[in-house]
Amino acid sequence: METSGLLLQLLLILVSARLLGGLAMYLDIPPVVGELLAGILIGPSLLGLVELGPVIHVLAEIGVILLLFDVGLHIDMARLISAGRSSVIVALGGFIGPFLLGSAATYWLFGQPLMVALFVGGTLTATSIGVTVRTLVDINRRDSREGQIAVGASVLDDILGIVLLAALYEYAQTGELAGGDSVRIMLFIGAFLLFAPVCAQWIAWLVKKVPVERHRPGLIPTTIVSLVLFLAWLAHEIGAPELMGGFAAGLALSRRFVLPFGLAIQSDPHFIKRVRADMAPIVQLFTPIFFVSVGLALDLSKINWSSVFFWSFSLVLLLLAVVGKFAGALLIREAWPLRLAVGMTMVPRGEVGLVFAGLGASAGVFSGEIYTALIMVIAYTTLLSPAWLKWYYRVAGARLE
Amino acid sequence: METSGLLLQLLLILVSARLLGGLAMYLDIPPVVGELLAGILIGPSLLGLVELGPVIHVLAEIGVILLLFDVGLHIDMARLISAGRSSVIVALGGFIGPFLLGSAATYWLFGQPLMVALFVGGTLTATSIGVTVRTLVDINRRDSREGQIAVGASVLDDILGIVLLAALYEYAQTGELAGGDSVRIMLFIGAFLLFAPVCAQWIAWLVKKVPVERHRPGLIPTTIVSLVLFLAWLAHEIGAPELMGGFAAGLALSRRFVLPFGLAIQSDPHFIKRVRADMAPIVQLFTPIFFVSVGLALDLSKINWSSVFFWSFSLVLLLLAVVGKFAGALLIREAWPLRLAVGMTMVPRGEVGLVFAGLGASAGVFSGEIYTALIMVIAYTTLLSPAWLKWYYRVAGARLE
Repeated sequence: METSGLLLQLLLILVSARLLGGLAMYLDIPPVVGELLAGILIGPSLLGLVELGPVIHVLAEIGVILLLFDVGLHIDMARLISAGRSSVIVALGGFIGPFLLGSAATYWLFGQPLMVALFVGGTLTATSIGVTVRTLVDINRRDSREGQIAVGASVLDDILGIVLLAALYEYAQTGELAGGDSVRIMLFIGAFLLFAPVCAQWIAWLVKKVPVERHRPGLIPTTIVSLVLFLAWLAHEIGAPELMGGFAAGLALSRRFVLPFGLAIQSDPHFIKRVRADMAPIVQLFTPIFFVSVGLALDLSKINWSSVFFWSFSLVLLLLAVVGKFAGALLIREAWPLRLAVGMTMVPRGEVGLVFAGLGASAGVFSGEIYTALIMVIAYTTLLSPAWLKWYYRVAGARLE
Repeated sequence: METSGLLLQLLLILVSARLLGGLAMYLDIPPVVGELLAGILIGPSLLGLVELGPVIHVLAEIGVILLLFDVGLHIDMARLISAGRSSVIVALGGFIGPFLLGSAATYWLFGQPLMVALFVGGTLTATSIGVTVRTLVDINRRDSREGQIAVGASVLDDILGIVLLAALYEYAQTGELAGGDSVRIMLFIGAFLLFAPVCAQWIAWLVKKVPVERHRPGLIPTTIVSLVLFLAWLAHEIGAPELMGGFAAGLALSRRFVLPFGLAIQSDPHFIKRVRADMAPIVQLFTPIFFVSVGLALDLSKINWSSVFFWSFSLVLLLLAVVGKFAGALLIREAWPLRLAVGMTMVPRGEVGLVFAGLGASAGVFSGEIYTALIMVIAYTTLLSPAWLKWYYRVAGARLE
């Protein structure tokens, strides 16, 4: 009986994502906004038809991991590396900026305790790599220079966000800011980034070795999904975000993959083409589940719309969240229109921010009102910036070519 | 934290299915046997690494629904209809035979109460359509005449099994054999079989109407999976097996679809080709999860291997389960080698049998010993008959062409 209800929930997710995504496209808004709104519509905020239970949650997680796999698969390593310096600056600036601004405002302006201030600052740090990437794809700028910078920066950003979360969570639990965990996690992530591509290349080599007459149907989809799941699990085990495993797997299988120490591996273009063709429908099926689930997680019905504190707090934080993200982007050595584009691309918050806010609320660090204000900030940045970016490209796009 | 453990379980399922499926193929056994053994290996029977929790259960259910969709999609309606008479005979004979033989032996030979005997007989009725179809695909006989007869018969068989289950369950609860539910379910199923194809054709027509420049990526996979989920949910709502929804959706989109009342619809071959190409990786990803989950559901560690009753009961039932399935196949007007092939194809029991036995055990109708004996019968028929069928084709295959 249980199963049939879940099939219906999955159906509602896929259909609402398709319809509202299509409507958004018709209205010239990036479709990802439609998919996020679909989650708000069918979720606890409005209709309450679908809840974010364990099954939907896992499918959504697989969705974002596969999305990052797809991003990695389509990345041009040479361009990612040439964008590397800029990505690091954007990531660091866009991480430190919102964290300091958000914490300071919460502490001094709104008179909250230090721990609350630090958690609020943390919530504002991590860009939603999912929304950022989908927006770039929607407006056809994924392969642009600013796209490469933003993708690299949001991956770094996610890692920094997770490291900060580990440190703050330790602090909230023990009252000591030892930092031991954070250093360990960073070392592990470094080791992972060296190991994962080697592992992925080895699996690809194995698959290519299977003689064609021994191919059973489904060799590519099951093997590649297994590889992605393995690296995602491994990333989680070492304390990194799971989606990093998907990104590493995709990157390692991308067209011109470069190993550390300058060892370039010529990938087999025929093999990559088959991987892309077989993985595309799977990625397209799972990713809308992720975006709808972000909308499901935003329970707007819990917001007390008449509270003055709620409005002032959320609007100030929204301003700082946007301004803070530009802190990194404005420091890179690129043309000004490009710096602005990168800054805007980095504005959406999502997954990690929701995790931060959720942990803060469940650990009793802050009240329900602060939690809902943070949810509101995440909703604003996620829903508005894709449309904003699209508008920017229409106005300033010519100067970016 | 929960999520990462589930990703690992999913990884173990996909990898073990791939490896043991490949080993089976290497040993010239149908790969589906390897996938079932993979479930026994990693499940509670042996290693206990993976348990059949709600997430895996839903993914497995989607797997078998998609498998039936794929079967429907590849069926030649004209041949299915020409095989229809034979399918009905095979289904009815192979349903009544095991039910009467199993119930009678349990009642008179083993002296069990009538209710126990009826549930045991019911457990032996329904062919595992999943295993049957996969075996036919594995040995390259899906499109043969005996393949069409067997597929049609096992779909009917599944429906009869579910109707019997509804009737017996009502009887076990109320002590009255009213049969009202059974009649209602059969009427609903008839209405569903008229409605589902019309609905599927209408969706296909809508998708084809979307102009190419308005195509967002993922139109085909998300729409087709939504359609399959909708019909599966609807099938469940009217009391039919969910996989019937998948089968109806596939059938309606198949190459030469025939509506009732002789209205033939010429499907667009280009569209069907795209549906097949996009759905293949999704089907290939999900179906192994189903077969492994059948292995996971068979907990062989609970069997008391030294019980005389267990051995005599399970061996007698096994014999009757096999003989009973031939009851229908031997009555059809075909060449003898073909009758034997159809009979063998119908032997594997699975999903519905497990549901029957599980409901009987959980409703307290019979003891743990009878339950495990039934599990053993299902395991025998499922694991042995694919290999047996393959051997038969090697010996008698020439007379079947």
